[in-house]
Amino acid sequence: MNHTIFALKGTIAYTPVPDKFVFAEESFLVCENEKVKGIWKELPDELKGIRVCDYTGKIIFPGMCDLHMHAPQYAFRGLGMNLENPDWDMWFEKYAFPDEKRYEDCEYAKKAYERLTDDLLKTTTTRCVMFGTLHRQSTEILMDLLEEKGIAAYVGKVNMDRNSIPGLLETTGESLEETKRWLSDCAEKKQYKKCRPMITPRYIPTCTDELLSGLGELAVEKGIPVQSHLSEGLDEMEWVRKLKPEISFYGEGYDRYHMFGDAVPTVMAHCVYSSEEEIALMKKREKLIVAHCPQSNISSSGGIAPVKRYLAEGIRVGLGSDMAGSNTLSLLRAITDAIHVSKARWAFTERGNDPHAKKNVLSLAEAFYLATHGGEGLWDSVGSFEEGYSFDAVVLDDSRIRDYCERSSYERTERLILMSDDRDIEAKFIDGRMVYQRADG
Amino acid sequence: MNHTIFALKGTIAYTPVPDKFVFAEESFLVCENEKVKGIWKELPDELKGIRVCDYTGKIIFPGMCDLHMHAPQYAFRGLGMNLENPDWDMWFEKYAFPDEKRYEDCEYAKKAYERLTDDLLKTTTTRCVMFGTLHRQSTEILMDLLEEKGIAAYVGKVNMDRNSIPGLLETTGESLEETKRWLSDCAEKKQYKKCRPMITPRYIPTCTDELLSGLGELAVEKGIPVQSHLSEGLDEMEWVRKLKPEISFYGEGYDRYHMFGDAVPTVMAHCVYSSEEEIALMKKREKLIVAHCPQSNISSSGGIAPVKRYLAEGIRVGLGSDMAGSNTLSLLRAITDAIHVSKARWAFTERGNDPHAKKNVLSLAEAFYLATHGGEGLWDSVGSFEEGYSFDAVVLDDSRIRDYCERSSYERTERLILMSDDRDIEAKFIDGRMVYQRADG
Repeated sequence: MNHTIFALKGTIAYTPVPDKFVFAEESFLVCENEKVKGIWKELPDELKGIRVCDYTGKIIFPGMCDLHMHAPQYAFRGLGMNLENPDWDMWFEKYAFPDEKRYEDCEYAKKAYERLTDDLLKTTTTRCVMFGTLHRQSTEILMDLLEEKGIAAYVGKVNMDRNSIPGLLETTGESLEETKRWLSDCAEKKQYKKCRPMITPRYIPTCTDELLSGLGELAVEKGIPVQSHLSEGLDEMEWVRKLKPEISFYGEGYDRYHMFGDAVPTVMAHCVYSSEEEIALMKKREKLIVAHCPQSNISSSGGIAPVKRYLAEGIRVGLGSDMAGSNTLSLLRAITDAIHVSKARWAFTERGNDPHAKKNVLSLAEAFYLATHGGEGLWDSVGSFEEGYSFDAVVLDDSRIRDYCERSSYERTERLILMSDDRDIEAKFIDGRMVYQRADG
Repeated sequence: MNHTIFALKGTIAYTPVPDKFVFAEESFLVCENEKVKGIWKELPDELKGIRVCDYTGKIIFPGMCDLHMHAPQYAFRGLGMNLENPDWDMWFEKYAFPDEKRYEDCEYAKKAYERLTDDLLKTTTTRCVMFGTLHRQSTEILMDLLEEKGIAAYVGKVNMDRNSIPGLLETTGESLEETKRWLSDCAEKKQYKKCRPMITPRYIPTCTDELLSGLGELAVEKGIPVQSHLSEGLDEMEWVRKLKPEISFYGEGYDRYHMFGDAVPTVMAHCVYSSEEEIALMKKREKLIVAHCPQSNISSSGGIAPVKRYLAEGIRVGLGSDMAGSNTLSLLRAITDAIHVSKARWAFTERGNDPHAKKNVLSLAEAFYLATHGGEGLWDSVGSFEEGYSFDAVVLDDSRIRDYCERSSYERTERLILMSDDRDIEAKFIDGRMVYQRADG
């Protein structure tokens, strides 16, 4: 790598620690060899003359990490959120599975994933953790596109050897063989730089013990992170109890096979209804990361994960869009949703009818921290602008949503989180490379 | 009025009754003299040759009614949603009151209200119920702009004779005198056609009994509808109890002065924490309309109004943005939020841990009905496309958010509600007049 150094100039907003914003107004954020070198109000002598991208008047956030999304479901986002009881099964039968089946066609995959990755560029997301489909080739197409566009990602070829629809199901042997072939493709043929594979048993109901066992072995042997779903819905949990009466809680079904954060980093999506026993194990498993998906949970079942509890217990938490359990890729929306649902959970549990109860809810800075630092268990030093962090930065233009008063950096940040959309993303950098620039920018 | 007749052609979606969408694919929606004449798949002979606005491929919704918003607060929307305890007072002190005070300056009012009314055109809202400020002149400026742009609205000059900040407070006498002068302006000098005045005591804490009494008399004498706030927050309700120990519940404070839907239509915003006694009175008061503001309630206190209960009790309910308790004018977002919070309320109350509990939550059609029919207690026959309804129609273009499959009209409707924004509003008609057309449309 050649030595490269440059700076962005603008108002910088980040959360080095939870619950506290740091702002550097109209300052220089310097990148050296893909990493943050530091922030200066005026460039020191030794940095004078470096290339400066001038975003004066704009706001610069650290890139955000979407810890949970289903890439193939982007196509049908915004559909099937309002089905009648028993809606969960119907959603899979009507939308998720038939739509995922389309990805056996590589041309369809190319078209749909091209659109997803293009649209991802116009968000604050710089890193993501994705489910693909069970199709090896389509999963590689997705990874090719992410790599080409410079988006850092962990991507999973999904494993399912039971309880799916015809044509979207593997035998246990096929599932393991295809996974091995895919891992070997990633390591040798493709040699991805930004994009890495992730072991992805869809969830307990779609994976036999034999499959889980084989996947766990692969993960541990090759040191490959894992992602799956956990305790998302009451009906799903009841199903898991029926399928696996021998385990005492859902997470144990993964933990038996070293896919619960003991051996490799493991993202568990949702954790809405985790039992005390499950939470106790989550605390012990230091490589476990909870992907909190507020919009998806409230939309599917009115569920709200106890995120404040998890944070108090020292469990690692980040945010996920859960595309297409939600209808948006925006992690700014996920921040807003996470705050809103934390307030409702607090109001319906701890507060009761006490108007003076201390508000145990997510603050704006705390939710911002979850969105930006969520990938830290998977990547080193991401989500902040301290020295040595990956240079992931998003430039936002708040001119469309300003009012008539001078507003503080905190206020401009709050408003961008609550109100901006793809139109306001001015530019995006991942590992020091500009991956997106607004057409008129 | 000259006889006018024309048709819109497109896919028509509406809810003549709660909980049921009716779709008319690629049909003609005919307007005659500001009213809906009917829907035809093919125009009958007697209508052949009328002017047709061709929106083939687009979707046409009835206009929606925003039952509660603070027009002056539009300027600072998206700010102050994440203050620390005791946040409610701070929000008023830091944002609401200082910003409202700016409207003593007519130039500022003109600029800010011009922007609000322009932006309102790019939404699905065709009718709204608004708080202005206590300034008579600014309130008239707002009404002039609404009238000029053809937006149907009830607007209130706000009354406050206690518990506000210096410079944003009237004496009781001033408040009543200014209100009378404003009502006379509206009736005589201005002769508004679309825009009507509404008696607007801000809420019990800012209005003495003498003021409430005087306002109630005016409302009854002149037959002018009323709007105010009710049981929005636990701290507010505690304050009301202290201020008025003689009443047994909040709503009684309005009811004593005929401002609770006994004499004139009355919009009560929020009703999140209404007691059983209050709900019993709400049921009796047939002219009372609840403005349900889901985003504002969850954001301010984690509160969720028991809307399913109100509907089951036969209480009239519609949706409000509560700008700037929320950050958006979009009633499509309010529909989504109303559904989400109804699910959370159900999950945290009725459902408990029963995975088989019957889902007592708002359906998409039901929430759409609330958004479109919410103004029915204030205007005759609005929010539907049956014969004789006001011709309020919004044309939406879903081409930006389509995927690769043929989708049903229900699916296209769901997706528009969940995902569209101002860019997708193609045209808008209020009382048969086109008030907005997208620049490239």
